[in-house]
Amino acid sequence: MTPPDAASPHHLLLGSCDYPEHVPRDCWETYARRQRELGLTFVRLAEFAWSRLEPRPGEFDWAWLDEAVEAYHREGLRVVLCTPTATPPAWLIRTHPEILPVDEEGRVREFGSRRHYDFASPVYREHSRRITRAMAERYGQHPAVVGWQTDNEFACHGTGRSYGGASAAAFPGWLRERYGTLDALNEAWGNVFWSMEYGDWGQIKPPNLTVTEANPAHILDFSRFASDQIASFQREQVDLLRELSPGRFVTHNFMIFESGFDHYEVARGLDFATWDNYPTGMLEFFAQGIVGEEDRNHFARTGHPDLVGWNHDVYRGLLRGAGRLGREGEGTPNGFWVMEQQCGQVNWAPFNPLPADGAVALWTAQAWAHGADVVSYFRWRAATMAQEVLHSGLLRHDETPDRGYAEVAALNQARFPLGEVPARVALLHDYESLWLLGAQPHSASLSYWAQTVTYYRALRSLGVDVDILHPDADLGGYAVVVAPAITLATEERAVRWATAVEGGARLVCGPRTGFRTPSGQAWAQGQPGPLAELLGVRLLQFDSLRSGLTQKVAGPEGDFQAHAWAESYRLAGAEATHTYVGGPQGGLPAVTRQGRATVIGAHSDALIRAVLRDVLAEAGVETVDLPDGVRLSRRAGVTLVQNWNPEAVTWEGRTLAPVSFEVVEESTPAGDDPRPARLG
Amino acid sequence: MTPPDAASPHHLLLGSCDYPEHVPRDCWETYARRQRELGLTFVRLAEFAWSRLEPRPGEFDWAWLDEAVEAYHREGLRVVLCTPTATPPAWLIRTHPEILPVDEEGRVREFGSRRHYDFASPVYREHSRRITRAMAERYGQHPAVVGWQTDNEFACHGTGRSYGGASAAAFPGWLRERYGTLDALNEAWGNVFWSMEYGDWGQIKPPNLTVTEANPAHILDFSRFASDQIASFQREQVDLLRELSPGRFVTHNFMIFESGFDHYEVARGLDFATWDNYPTGMLEFFAQGIVGEEDRNHFARTGHPDLVGWNHDVYRGLLRGAGRLGREGEGTPNGFWVMEQQCGQVNWAPFNPLPADGAVALWTAQAWAHGADVVSYFRWRAATMAQEVLHSGLLRHDETPDRGYAEVAALNQARFPLGEVPARVALLHDYESLWLLGAQPHSASLSYWAQTVTYYRALRSLGVDVDILHPDADLGGYAVVVAPAITLATEERAVRWATAVEGGARLVCGPRTGFRTPSGQAWAQGQPGPLAELLGVRLLQFDSLRSGLTQKVAGPEGDFQAHAWAESYRLAGAEATHTYVGGPQGGLPAVTRQGRATVIGAHSDALIRAVLRDVLAEAGVETVDLPDGVRLSRRAGVTLVQNWNPEAVTWEGRTLAPVSFEVVEESTPAGDDPRPARLG
Amino acid sequence: MTPPDAASPHHLLLGSCDYPEHVPRDCWETYARRQRELGLTFVRLAEFAWSRLEPRPGEFDWAWLDEAVEAYHREGLRVVLCTPTATPPAWLIRTHPEILPVDEEGRVREFGSRRHYDFASPVYREHSRRITRAMAERYGQHPAVVGWQTDNEFACHGTGRSYGGASAAAFPGWLRERYGTLDALNEAWGNVFWSMEYGDWGQIKPPNLTVTEANPAHILDFSRFASDQIASFQREQVDLLRELSPGRFVTHNFMIFESGFDHYEVARGLDFATWDNYPTGMLEFFAQGIVGEEDRNHFARTGHPDLVGWNHDVYRGLLRGAGRLGREGEGTPNGFWVMEQQCGQVNWAPFNPLPADGAVALWTAQAWAHGADVVSYFRWRAATMAQEVLHSGLLRHDETPDRGYAEVAALNQARFPLGEVPARVALLHDYESLWLLGAQPHSASLSYWAQTVTYYRALRSLGVDVDILHPDADLGGYAVVVAPAITLATEERAVRWATAVEGGARLVCGPRTGFRTPSGQAWAQGQPGPLAELLGVRLLQFDSLRSGLTQKVAGPEGDFQAHAWAESYRLAGAEATHTYVGGPQGGLPAVTRQGRATVIGAHSDALIRAVLRDVLAEAGVETVDLPDGVRLSRRAGVTLVQNWNPEAVTWEGRTLAPVSFEVVEESTPAGDDPRPARLG
Ligand SMILES: [Zn+2]
Ligand SMILES: [Zn+2]
Ligand SMILES: [Zn+2]
Repeated sequence: MTPPDAASPHHLLLGSCDYPEHVPRDCWETYARRQRELGLTFVRLAEFAWSRLEPRPGEFDWAWLDEAVEAYHREGLRVVLCTPTATPPAWLIRTHPEILPVDEEGRVREFGSRRHYDFASPVYREHSRRITRAMAERYGQHPAVVGWQTDNEFACHGTGRSYGGASAAAFPGWLRERYGTLDALNEAWGNVFWSMEYGDWGQIKPPNLTVTEANPAHILDFSRFASDQIASFQREQVDLLRELSPGRFVTHNFMIFESGFDHYEVARGLDFATWDNYPTGMLEFFAQGIVGEEDRNHFARTGHPDLVGWNHDVYRGLLRGAGRLGREGEGTPNGFWVMEQQCGQVNWAPFNPLPADGAVALWTAQAWAHGADVVSYFRWRAATMAQEVLHSGLLRHDETPDRGYAEVAALNQARFPLGEVPARVALLHDYESLWLLGAQPHSASLSYWAQTVTYYRALRSLGVDVDILHPDADLGGYAVVVAPAITLATEERAVRWATAVEGGARLVCGPRTGFRTPSGQAWAQGQPGPLAELLGVRLLQFDSLRSGLTQKVAGPEGDFQAHAWAESYRLAGAEATHTYVGGPQGGLPAVTRQGRATVIGAHSDALIRAVLRDVLAEAGVETVDLPDGVRLSRRAGVTLVQNWNPEAVTWEGRTLAPVSFEVVEESTPAGDDPRPARLG
Repeated sequence: MTPPDAASPHHLLLGSCDYPEHVPRDCWETYARRQRELGLTFVRLAEFAWSRLEPRPGEFDWAWLDEAVEAYHREGLRVVLCTPTATPPAWLIRTHPEILPVDEEGRVREFGSRRHYDFASPVYREHSRRITRAMAERYGQHPAVVGWQTDNEFACHGTGRSYGGASAAAFPGWLRERYGTLDALNEAWGNVFWSMEYGDWGQIKPPNLTVTEANPAHILDFSRFASDQIASFQREQVDLLRELSPGRFVTHNFMIFESGFDHYEVARGLDFATWDNYPTGMLEFFAQGIVGEEDRNHFARTGHPDLVGWNHDVYRGLLRGAGRLGREGEGTPNGFWVMEQQCGQVNWAPFNPLPADGAVALWTAQAWAHGADVVSYFRWRAATMAQEVLHSGLLRHDETPDRGYAEVAALNQARFPLGEVPARVALLHDYESLWLLGAQPHSASLSYWAQTVTYYRALRSLGVDVDILHPDADLGGYAVVVAPAITLATEERAVRWATAVEGGARLVCGPRTGFRTPSGQAWAQGQPGPLAELLGVRLLQFDSLRSGLTQKVAGPEGDFQAHAWAESYRLAGAEATHTYVGGPQGGLPAVTRQGRATVIGAHSDALIRAVLRDVLAEAGVETVDLPDGVRLSRRAGVTLVQNWNPEAVTWEGRTLAPVSFEVVEESTPAGDDPRPARLG
Repeated sequence: MTPPDAASPHHLLLGSCDYPEHVPRDCWETYARRQRELGLTFVRLAEFAWSRLEPRPGEFDWAWLDEAVEAYHREGLRVVLCTPTATPPAWLIRTHPEILPVDEEGRVREFGSRRHYDFASPVYREHSRRITRAMAERYGQHPAVVGWQTDNEFACHGTGRSYGGASAAAFPGWLRERYGTLDALNEAWGNVFWSMEYGDWGQIKPPNLTVTEANPAHILDFSRFASDQIASFQREQVDLLRELSPGRFVTHNFMIFESGFDHYEVARGLDFATWDNYPTGMLEFFAQGIVGEEDRNHFARTGHPDLVGWNHDVYRGLLRGAGRLGREGEGTPNGFWVMEQQCGQVNWAPFNPLPADGAVALWTAQAWAHGADVVSYFRWRAATMAQEVLHSGLLRHDETPDRGYAEVAALNQARFPLGEVPARVALLHDYESLWLLGAQPHSASLSYWAQTVTYYRALRSLGVDVDILHPDADLGGYAVVVAPAITLATEERAVRWATAVEGGARLVCGPRTGFRTPSGQAWAQGQPGPLAELLGVRLLQFDSLRSGLTQKVAGPEGDFQAHAWAESYRLAGAEATHTYVGGPQGGLPAVTRQGRATVIGAHSDALIRAVLRDVLAEAGVETVDLPDGVRLSRRAGVTLVQNWNPEAVTWEGRTLAPVSFEVVEESTPAGDDPRPARLG
């Protein structure tokens, strides 16, 4: 294994996703050479190749992959191999149709695309272990192979949950394990309500097809159960890979804004996280309800900086891994990869615009600035067959370089040093809270994502770097902790946050914080449950505002208009800093403050930004008012100034070209004062 | 049983819905006391409590309910008990899954919420009788128990019809009963069309999943069948309650704008009707297509006065019951209750805004003015568990009084005397016509509800009190009879209406009146079928107007613009009072008049209002032009002036505060001249 | 058989669809007489009459139809009989439920309306042959019977494909027939992608319910398979009719914008095509995404001239049949019929407005001008029963003449001579390309229909008559050939088009032309695949524009704004005539030209019109700039000037009344110079 840049590995490296099985063999050598010439270090192989690796039950065909790996190896590329379990072949599915998952409508999801399996299926588990073992035995110690990707994009296409078959069969046992007795379960779920009490474990089914909405506690536990199936499914692969492929990293490529499982749980045991970054598809397909239609038009060709940034920061914070780039000790602690990076148009959104000139380079630079050690483009050459024939690659169908290729070629990888992102602000993110708000949003226009990303955008618009962490993570050392939508509160969590505040951190909570118990009930003492002492407030009521309704809020900065949500508090130690004006909550507290703990009850972009700016200032985190679409990110003592707008922006005396970035070396070590002046 | 207000029972009384099984036992005594202190007279119990009353098959646990009833009894509260059949427990469903209903898509609707049963299931009928008998034997003669509610909100969540299982099995037998021979059925349905003729009763299935739309006659009879199942299901409970709980009333709590059964049929045999009044949820969830988006914003925090009023008037007119309040002889003939009255936010609409200040009091006063003898708030304390955790109660989760509590406390119940609503106008309402227009609306923007409520709104905006009656009800004594959308005409009905007109009543019919035979065919002689002689017109054609199209109508008052619907007539005795101008019906009659019978063929709010105003004037029913959101209602010689607007309104020299009411004693006995001057 | 106009059959003739089984027998004679008096020549009978012809298995009842045929025969009407296979009766379906089709969601589609059968069902095939043989034996040589309609509106209501049952069972065999080996199939479909390779024919199912989108190659072949089932289903009927009813024509009534099968394949073996023309229903129900909301309002009462014209021209070009009107030798080569012509409101769209005054006459005249030899109104009398009770007829329910009747009566049929439509422009239309663009549109706002009809509208707005042809049709003699969206290219097709261009034709291709191989893969050499040499370009990239995005294009005529789609090319022989300005394709070719071959890569109505105008001018096809809603059509040396606008239009000095036409005899033989001056 001879990395092409062995002399200086401590900067961003690049790679691509390639599928030698999709092209004639005589292409392989050429592709490997061209990848090396383009400056790529990594190549990901065999992602969905099960039907070629095991064309018939038990008959393996390694020859082609042996040859392909050698072809890349000869050019010095480092190979990442995938377990191909996202695509069980026809022979397996038709022999064991019980592997197929069942959708929320009760329909079996059929063979003919991908991800057609139920994570809980014992039969599929066996075959997953079998193919993983076979691949790991064959390639686990190959000198070109530096790491493994498990499966592909867990839960994508709504496959995180199967509402029948193996999952339905396993769910009662999982509950028995969790609760011990049915009395405990009935109590935890509040099943006395509507006579939903169970008298036998076997009576319990998934929470779908109920006459009206299911019990949120039922939904919450089914979500946890499904998440656990994914975690244990993967763990079986990881254990085999650890045993048979020592010294190689193991990771998974997570997906954009995926809600189908608890990423913190599923990431455990990996070396680091990777994710698949498709900024324009994200904006078209996943961002509905998170950003408005105006933003979707304005950023149609780049994606929205904060939606992309959000995902980077989630995956950077997912586990504190070794950050290995394929050699012991390389990379950034807490580092992550972009395993699939859009490098042209995608094919899976309702509209699939071409990226702007410069977008591929900007996305790469941003990934680095948010902590990525490697960016790997999807895909090397556009597929000429099947579902993704309209998706671009670095090469066109006719093998000529597509637009993204030139931008990659022009990147100077050495300008992007590895190192830490110096975030002093932590934002808390929790899949259990997400599931609960998803089960009962109460306001159709304020999902968990919409509420949470609003806070993130406010922080990013103030030029602040953010670590995104689980609400039970270690919060030591952060100046400010923001909890936008952590609706599930536990006693332990309350203690942990109180400790952080006692330790000097400022805490800012959004509405609905601490409404729910760990079972998904409402705290009988009312929101914020066990956080009441820390926050000094008790919920009075919450107001769910239809799009035609707004609620005025007055504060020292002036007036604001809340939309979508407004809740008010009885002061129990805190003081009101902002108050509702008019309406059913007129005169009641909208924002409160007790010591270093702030609660924002009104949903208003401007209000949230104003309150955060003040809190950051008090905490000694300097802020800067950035224009729309202009963002700052810092890493390893360097600041990346980005303009995501399709037009040039003049800011602090500098003119930023459309869709561009500048890497600015700071005159002092990375610190807490990244003011624009330094960028001059 | 000592009613707290035994001295003066002849005014509005209040109550609440409470669920002792949801809270620790030590709460019960306190809650009962606090309810009494708040001035509540009634408490409704055990609504969904089957799994607590019969935790295992045949094992009853009465202890807790005995104790709860005693706790309320000790405070003098009158108890309404519910048969808990809306929530069959898990042990029953898992033993007899054939109880579960099937939705229109052919999917079994699962256990896990409520209403998961098929009304036609013989097994479920047996268990329904068994639990009803057991409860009635236990509590039927308890001194605290004054009445019974059967089940809960029949047909809610689309459960009025099951498209498989027991209903599918019973449907052919019901048809055989109705038609006797298949020839008769094939003839009645017109099955020669598209070769739909049946040769065996067993060939007939519910009208779902057909390739294109099903025969409206098929749909009509399936709707009648399903309605009959509900009626007979309830009758079994009523018979048992009459036998085992003598002297107590039996009622059912009907639901907002429910179309799933013929309420007139299902109400037979009850003492009086009750319904569940959620004005803001009604506006968000049920009012789509009935009122416009502007109204939905304007009245977001109160609901729309006429949507709420409509429901009150429907349930007041449902049967002419004893109006007993729990003691023989109490209450208003034709009285009804609001069994569940929203007293804060609801949780089940896409948006769930807080009610305006004053809304709970306004809703209570309006209920009284439309004829309610009792208003019972839902619910006493907000649930801390399960599906309704986001629904408010009089008490918050933390047991502090919520906003509605204060408004209830401030009500002076004695200001609301019982007595008759002095309506001189009858509006005809018919579920068979509703089903037919639902099966074939012809214009996507003019449902039965939209057409009918438009006429009701016009009457209410003119300050007129309205009785809503079945089209075959006794119409004696009414000055004006309005038939907005009675599309099904029978020979008998034609005679009945003619008799009313001969007797002096004015009749106003909307478009589509008399288009259909009782089988749902078109009358071969054309609309209005047997009503032709009475109305003096024959339909020429109907025009279905998309939102971008309008049709001008000219009349003595000026010009109007019809939208959604315009039909024209050949005069056969009548004369035209309004004529279409331009378009395919230019020059043809839009409104006609023969003696005291008027037909309005054009759908236009302003036109309808203008014609009705003239007819009312002729009939000696005085009208007043009320501003939007201002309404008058009269009862027992008193006028309730209501302002539903979120802003103050000056009207006839008086300033009405936002969301408020005034109770105005009339200087003369309740009569036909409620002019504003009297209110001064 | 005595045709009423035997002396002069060489002009347009009229007819109606009648259903004697729907009315009492004593109506039949009267109806026949009234039809004759109205000037009708044809009557279509027995369309859905299976349950009356064979009330019980094997028991035929011919008496009523014998009598009905005689009644019409006595009045000299020519009878078209239908095989009633669109409506298998209940006794057949309940005995053989396996006949029922399965929808894309996996649900069995039930009895109770029509078209409830799977074309691939061997049982149904047998019964289809049986009833066809029985009818043909009975009536095949009856002197009144001049022709046959097979079934009714194949594939309507999404019945073109069944995703289970008989079709699912037959699909693998069809594939084996097509591919011979699984290796060939796997290669053709590109099944190596996502490990979709099959190892056994039995593993292959229809492409529905897959986890995410199915392979477009899978969808394409399933579409071909389903189309073949329809073709062979019909062929069985045609063979029997040819044998047993010699000298009569056989046709089928195709449906508006139907995509469910390859019409060119299914039409083979018919004498000529007919179709069912419902202009207002078409606009409301089928035109979504093809024309904008503004047009849908403006033409609400007439339908859109070019949507209707499109269908006429498709069916005229479907096969080059004998054009027989029921007698050997009568009619126009390439002629067609309108088998069902809307003559009042329809009932099956969300809105069903009344046609404008004059619309029925205008539709009839337009049908003639586009090549129809017969127009047959649907239906004689409005049905009084079942699903179509709200659909108009020439007579109302009460048997009085409805509005359309008067317009038919006023038509002077002799003014509409039969003869050729002198089109010099061919537009290519292909169902395989349609299916591929439907499977993967890439831009949600640019379907195959939207793209193709845009070119057609541009041509029609220039006053040009158009032949619509299969892309592999003989193109000899056309001055201009337009290929708006032929995305599937074959080597043979490329040769054929090149031959046409060499022969002097101008070729204009739209975007996406030649992207796909016959298997639905992308050509590995890139778009336009084998057309590259002819067109002189290679695709660079395609841009899918959301509604908020446009792309500027500059050319000699000025600037244009592309929406929905923009693709650019590398010049390989061609030159750029229009270039993108700004955006990711700024500076790249948008429209190219190599000799007589033009490629338009940008979707812009104005640009397409401008380029076509230039090409037509060069080709010597004169054009005229018509106002919106004004159209010219030529046939047999006569020009029909049409005004579809609801207001009068002054054009070239003449005032055209609203919704009207003028038949203008040209002063010279039909040629290529239909300039407005001639119309003066
Ligand atoms: Zn992937
Ligand atoms: Zn209830
Ligand atoms: Zn037809």
